[in-house]
Amino acid sequence: MLSQVVELIETKNTFGITTHIKPDGDGVGSSLGLCWLLRSLGKEAEVLVHGEIPIAYQSLPGADKIRNVAEIDSQYDAVFVIECSDLHRPGIAGLDKEFTVNIDHHATSEHFGTINWIDSTASAVGEMIYNLCKAIGGRVTKEIAECVYMALVTDTGSFHFSNTTERTLKVASELVKVGVRPERVSEAVYNSYPWSRIELMRQVLDTVKRDETGRVAWMRQTLKMRELAGAVDGDNNGFVNIPLAARDILAVAYMREVGDHVYRVSVRSKGSINVARVAEQFGGGGHRNAAGLTVSGDWDEREREIVEALSKAVERSDPDWVSDAPNIA
Amino acid sequence: MLSQVVELIETKNTFGITTHIKPDGDGVGSSLGLCWLLRSLGKEAEVLVHGEIPIAYQSLPGADKIRNVAEIDSQYDAVFVIECSDLHRPGIAGLDKEFTVNIDHHATSEHFGTINWIDSTASAVGEMIYNLCKAIGGRVTKEIAECVYMALVTDTGSFHFSNTTERTLKVASELVKVGVRPERVSEAVYNSYPWSRIELMRQVLDTVKRDETGRVAWMRQTLKMRELAGAVDGDNNGFVNIPLAARDILAVAYMREVGDHVYRVSVRSKGSINVARVAEQFGGGGHRNAAGLTVSGDWDEREREIVEALSKAVERSDPDWVSDAPNIA
Repeated sequence: MLSQVVELIETKNTFGITTHIKPDGDGVGSSLGLCWLLRSLGKEAEVLVHGEIPIAYQSLPGADKIRNVAEIDSQYDAVFVIECSDLHRPGIAGLDKEFTVNIDHHATSEHFGTINWIDSTASAVGEMIYNLCKAIGGRVTKEIAECVYMALVTDTGSFHFSNTTERTLKVASELVKVGVRPERVSEAVYNSYPWSRIELMRQVLDTVKRDETGRVAWMRQTLKMRELAGAVDGDNNGFVNIPLAARDILAVAYMREVGDHVYRVSVRSKGSINVARVAEQFGGGGHRNAAGLTVSGDWDEREREIVEALSKAVERSDPDWVSDAPNIA
Repeated sequence: MLSQVVELIETKNTFGITTHIKPDGDGVGSSLGLCWLLRSLGKEAEVLVHGEIPIAYQSLPGADKIRNVAEIDSQYDAVFVIECSDLHRPGIAGLDKEFTVNIDHHATSEHFGTINWIDSTASAVGEMIYNLCKAIGGRVTKEIAECVYMALVTDTGSFHFSNTTERTLKVASELVKVGVRPERVSEAVYNSYPWSRIELMRQVLDTVKRDETGRVAWMRQTLKMRELAGAVDGDNNGFVNIPLAARDILAVAYMREVGDHVYRVSVRSKGSINVARVAEQFGGGGHRNAAGLTVSGDWDEREREIVEALSKAVERSDPDWVSDAPNIA
């Protein structure tokens, strides 16, 4: 609970902060935001992440001080674990021996912490860090604001997703008041790719197809394409959403060759069409409108099966949402 | 001025509202928002637009009642002209004989109205309509909120552009409080394209090139591509921004064949690189980071000249902004 977190901070002095491996904008932004908050209160704090910080977040204030560690190598009164479903997600050994504070906005969190503060009404943990700052009577400094804004922007898809609330936008407004420049954050998040992204997009988009109903689309990415493009991890962020921009397309499969006859598949849908169920049929899982699965064997055959499963999911879904979807009323 | 607008509304009863041809989200959203506001105050009001309403805005409340007219055919006490640089922009004959109220957020407005209310601090005219609602003591109904939110989202590029202020986000928050569902608005704006957009994107992206410095990129769209894709106007919205996602790319030219040896060119840049100057060299114009021009003759030759002009603009620009750009501090 928030009150326990406030009490802990008020009574202790030395804090570690960590988040999941391959951290996203909420993981990095919230960790750094909390770190700046703790320091502004006169506490000792540092951020520990196992692995590299994605380039999009490297320009956040304090990002250059994040320590890349595989195990706990310092003494802390407590370690904050940001946006992790369990204690293994940070990939850091020794966390189980620490006094841990689990801060998450996913209702599915395992309550693994000594203290657990879960708020599933928050659009991002960043919003919770802002609330903590207010609750503890701290000042929202420019550094805190920039880190928290990054968390909000990335976890709401730039205020596009349904987790965007009145509160999210109000907090965003307060952060801009303190000095955040929204265009700078967008530039860092959306325009920080290497050129290989463009080369890869060109090749992947060249494979896009749709079924006779015009409601299901799919595309492929081979290992050879990655090689030709000189692609790195993250270059394909959001590719799966490109065909969804077509209003008639209700479900998309984006299939990536990841090994010898092994294919990682991202599935996406609109409205009430449940692709988590489709993913589960193939041993995968996820959310209603965004899920993933891995298949192996003959690519053409697997593709046919997945496209067929998506077509069935489209047929099964509530037809009303289709006309309803673009209706803002 | 705002006070004149308030007084006019309080003392008159019958209003027309119009905006520029090929209206954008701010034009349609602000016109409809104002219409709902006037009606909630017991006034008679209707929206007149010359031409079709783009599909992205057709689901706004009241959009189906917008009248497509080429000349004024009714009696009004006053006609509001939304987001127009001059009285010709709506493409509606007879406006010059009306009592007109010019409402715009562009400082460049010609003050053509009987009353002129220009607020260049507003991110969109939508923000001004919200202010008007507050100033006149009106209630922000769900209909007004949905129309104004559309205006804000489209004119700020989903709160990405530098015109996004503390005030913009605060108003957005208030609108969500009244019942706007941000994900529905995004769905309408960004996922309402025909499939032809995907087909056209595939072909255009297949032509993308960059120069030896890796800082200037360009791509082509032929009339044949449009034909093959079955493309309609608007399908290529945002294509020019795709290469800008690469962090090293600082300027982009997107060249469209529009007639026999005639090419319409959109140029875009980052930071201090001024493509308006480049456009002016070829008889075009625009803003620092977004401009346009038309050339004719030999495509290869014109392309070479434009790319060379962009390369020079990149060289001329303040080198500091480059390292500064992704820096949110």
